[in-house]
Amino acid sequence: MPTPPLAIRLHPADGVVIARTDILAGTPIPGENVTALARIPPGHKIATRAHAEGEPVRRYGQIIGVATRPIAPGEHVHSHNLGMGDHAKDYAFCSEAKPTDYVATPATFQGIVRPDGRVATRNYIGVLTTVNCSATVAQYVADAFRRNPFTGHDPLADFPNVDGVVALTHKTGCGMNDGEPLRLLRRTLAGYARHPNFAAIIVLGLGCEVNQIPGLMEEGKLEGRPRVRALTIQATGGTPKTVAKGVEFVREVLAEANAQGVRTSVPASHLCVALQCGGSDGYSGISANPALGAASDLVVRHGGTVILSETPETYGAEHLLTRRAVSEAVGRKLVDLMDWWEEYTRRNGGELDDNPSPGNKAGGLTTILEKSLGAMAKAGTTNLVEVYRYAEPVTAKGFVFMDTPGYDPVAATGQVAGGANIVCFTTGRGSVYGCKPAPSIKLATNTPMFRRMEDDMDINCGTVIDGDESVAECGQRIFDHILRVASGERTKSEQWGFGAEEFAPWVQGATM
Amino acid sequence: MPTPPLAIRLHPADGVVIARTDILAGTPIPGENVTALARIPPGHKIATRAHAEGEPVRRYGQIIGVATRPIAPGEHVHSHNLGMGDHAKDYAFCSEAKPTDYVATPATFQGIVRPDGRVATRNYIGVLTTVNCSATVAQYVADAFRRNPFTGHDPLADFPNVDGVVALTHKTGCGMNDGEPLRLLRRTLAGYARHPNFAAIIVLGLGCEVNQIPGLMEEGKLEGRPRVRALTIQATGGTPKTVAKGVEFVREVLAEANAQGVRTSVPASHLCVALQCGGSDGYSGISANPALGAASDLVVRHGGTVILSETPETYGAEHLLTRRAVSEAVGRKLVDLMDWWEEYTRRNGGELDDNPSPGNKAGGLTTILEKSLGAMAKAGTTNLVEVYRYAEPVTAKGFVFMDTPGYDPVAATGQVAGGANIVCFTTGRGSVYGCKPAPSIKLATNTPMFRRMEDDMDINCGTVIDGDESVAECGQRIFDHILRVASGERTKSEQWGFGAEEFAPWVQGATM
Ligand SMILES: [Ca+2]
Ligand SMILES: [Ca+2]
Ligand SMILES: [Ca+2]
Ligand SMILES: [Ca+2]
Ligand SMILES: [Ca+2]
Repeated sequence: MPTPPLAIRLHPADGVVIARTDILAGTPIPGENVTALARIPPGHKIATRAHAEGEPVRRYGQIIGVATRPIAPGEHVHSHNLGMGDHAKDYAFCSEAKPTDYVATPATFQGIVRPDGRVATRNYIGVLTTVNCSATVAQYVADAFRRNPFTGHDPLADFPNVDGVVALTHKTGCGMNDGEPLRLLRRTLAGYARHPNFAAIIVLGLGCEVNQIPGLMEEGKLEGRPRVRALTIQATGGTPKTVAKGVEFVREVLAEANAQGVRTSVPASHLCVALQCGGSDGYSGISANPALGAASDLVVRHGGTVILSETPETYGAEHLLTRRAVSEAVGRKLVDLMDWWEEYTRRNGGELDDNPSPGNKAGGLTTILEKSLGAMAKAGTTNLVEVYRYAEPVTAKGFVFMDTPGYDPVAATGQVAGGANIVCFTTGRGSVYGCKPAPSIKLATNTPMFRRMEDDMDINCGTVIDGDESVAECGQRIFDHILRVASGERTKSEQWGFGAEEFAPWVQGATM
Repeated sequence: MPTPPLAIRLHPADGVVIARTDILAGTPIPGENVTALARIPPGHKIATRAHAEGEPVRRYGQIIGVATRPIAPGEHVHSHNLGMGDHAKDYAFCSEAKPTDYVATPATFQGIVRPDGRVATRNYIGVLTTVNCSATVAQYVADAFRRNPFTGHDPLADFPNVDGVVALTHKTGCGMNDGEPLRLLRRTLAGYARHPNFAAIIVLGLGCEVNQIPGLMEEGKLEGRPRVRALTIQATGGTPKTVAKGVEFVREVLAEANAQGVRTSVPASHLCVALQCGGSDGYSGISANPALGAASDLVVRHGGTVILSETPETYGAEHLLTRRAVSEAVGRKLVDLMDWWEEYTRRNGGELDDNPSPGNKAGGLTTILEKSLGAMAKAGTTNLVEVYRYAEPVTAKGFVFMDTPGYDPVAATGQVAGGANIVCFTTGRGSVYGCKPAPSIKLATNTPMFRRMEDDMDINCGTVIDGDESVAECGQRIFDHILRVASGERTKSEQWGFGAEEFAPWVQGATM
């Protein structure tokens, strides 16, 4: 039985350490030569030396803010004495890019190979909607193929390789600006329509919405694609006729979808992993995120792709990524995103540095910069090879960045639209997130939460905190789990059936 | 059999008439002394006299825009020759306010009287969510009480006065500004939680979201209310435990909810009618909207309330409402809203005058001003007694205005949050809208669409176009229908089960 430390030091240069457990006032911190001056909740920071007012405070060896008043050794460091200051930025483009250490014989998983050569991890039939006005009708089409929990009657019983029929509905599509907000919605819908995890798709509209089907089909390059059926309620003549047409189409494509859904051995280079965190706590940046980072490095070394996102949560730490960019052009795309976000949030009366949620703050994260550094750890250490707009098709192999908000469902929806076929979601406070048609693996940052929400958590990374496992060992365990889930093993959220409600395209611009 | 006119003149001063049917080039227009110079689609405008470039064009006797090039008699008038100009505004506050002609013996309906004296038209149990992260769990609670369509097993069979258990989920609640965007979401959720059509409510959160339950309960004055149960997934320990707790609460309140759901005769003053239009066409402003206006006048004369909304669709015609305001203060609230919208849309890169959707334009509406005048007709002719913010509790009796976007689900969600217990929704292109817990009556503007979508339409106002019925007769028919629906008669959208997907709180500010 390992003896876990009282506090965790993340870097030799740090002026703070992180409480692993509730530390009472007067408790000496072994190895740090300080005594806690106040009660320090788990995940929160303790000063290990004095800081003058205005002096930078470091964690991960990086500046997470400045002391807003003098801080004594042993003091609790949080919102009352730590704030954002001007943090020097040196982009130093490409200065730390290095050759990727590819694995000689890549791992494999049991994937579903589509006619165009792309590889799926699941095999769904989807009902997408152009507008909220067709959402209920879309549900009714999907409902016709739901297994009955009482009788056990399963309309898909003869199609064991089909994972289900899912309606992905939303609240927008009309009363909206027909410029970028509409293009962004269409990129998202088209990304789902083309997602390899869908064997076939219905695109269902009302008829008079701003997001007209012909424009969506053209902008999304969906015209003439097989197994895409467009329908509007108005042209079809109302609810029951449209439901009947939708159900008829699904019945037509089920046999072929089932035949396509046979799994074969494919290289891990077909993995496209969306990296997410939500409900972070002070452990996120110590356990689950660095461990997922180790797994990300394995995915990339096996030839696959990992997508880091949540731009506002990377804000302030982007100069660490520009150094790892493969070219200045790629690095500048990231810097441009940050400029766009500054302007966007200012225009909307917000500010980028007040993003930690009440949950984050209660968990011990004080500044967005501190949260950014912890969040970025998910992406590991390989080169940044490309930067994408929200929901843009991800074609590069390696570590890429996609612009998304930090809000979990909106962020992951962009990544899945980009083609992610696995989501890895770290959480400290606990999340029950799922995102059909991609499986979502949930990684707990701490053992108490893992135990409390074991019905919803897939992997416990609290082992790193407990002293049971190193970050590298936990990363290998995550990688192995990714391969099993990509091969068909169902995640907790899939077992419960999560993943339709959570479809949440990014809404930009005014609702009119 | 009445002979319908070829074109409809709305006002003696108008320089255009409206094609009732497809008019071919060379067809003389009886009574107008002009001949169509081009094909005029139904609902579109024909010039009945020459207009010089820059000259105002009138419809309803009101300026709907200016000629952007010279228009000859008989020409098709649309986007190619009609644009927005500067339209003179004279608010003339209260100048046309007049005493309301109340009905001596108000009509009655069979309503459900709550312990606090408020009257419901339906009797639901609701599951509301603070954040998207609890949406699926909310669905599972509601799902436990769904009637099984195959076995006929109905978990609510012993509770015939309960209309159902409905989960109303959304895509926001975190990654958001904690200022006005959060207050607005909380007003909406609290309005639903307090809605008389709910016998009991669960408020379900994840736990770490920006929209924390304690803040919602306090701002929404929900603390200590009976039959409101707050739950978070994190505190309850994950999905199955939280579903079980939710189901347990519903089972606890079902008997009392059923007992409360007995209907008794109540005066029509308890009607609170939300006025909506969506998928408008050139007939909206000729048939369904004026007919609904006649019904609105009856509701007000019987002591009830009607709520006009869709602020951007009223933009440009607000000076007609300021004249009917009961006080300058009420009128100025409306003007202030318009100023706010100008600033809001500018900030979001939009403009208020480009709102007609592709469907509107295809139906013959050229400018937002023209659409505004047609939309306002729904509110009838009585005094404007109050102006409310989005989702604010509506307590006044009479004709009131509530600030909402024009987009149907977002607009009606605000009105229902304000306490509307009936929605009257006019549509020209066809809509399948429903909005639990309030019934939604759908009024078709034209007979062909009514026939094509009869499964979804409740009332045909195309009779006015066809020459079968006057606007006043159609208004009386609508009013009688409202009383029956308020008494429990189910609308088309209720028969199909619409109304959960369509819950769409107004999202303001940036998603972070
Ligand atoms: Ca435009
Ligand atoms: Ca700032
Ligand atoms: Ca996130
Ligand atoms: Ca703030
Ligand atoms: Ca509307």
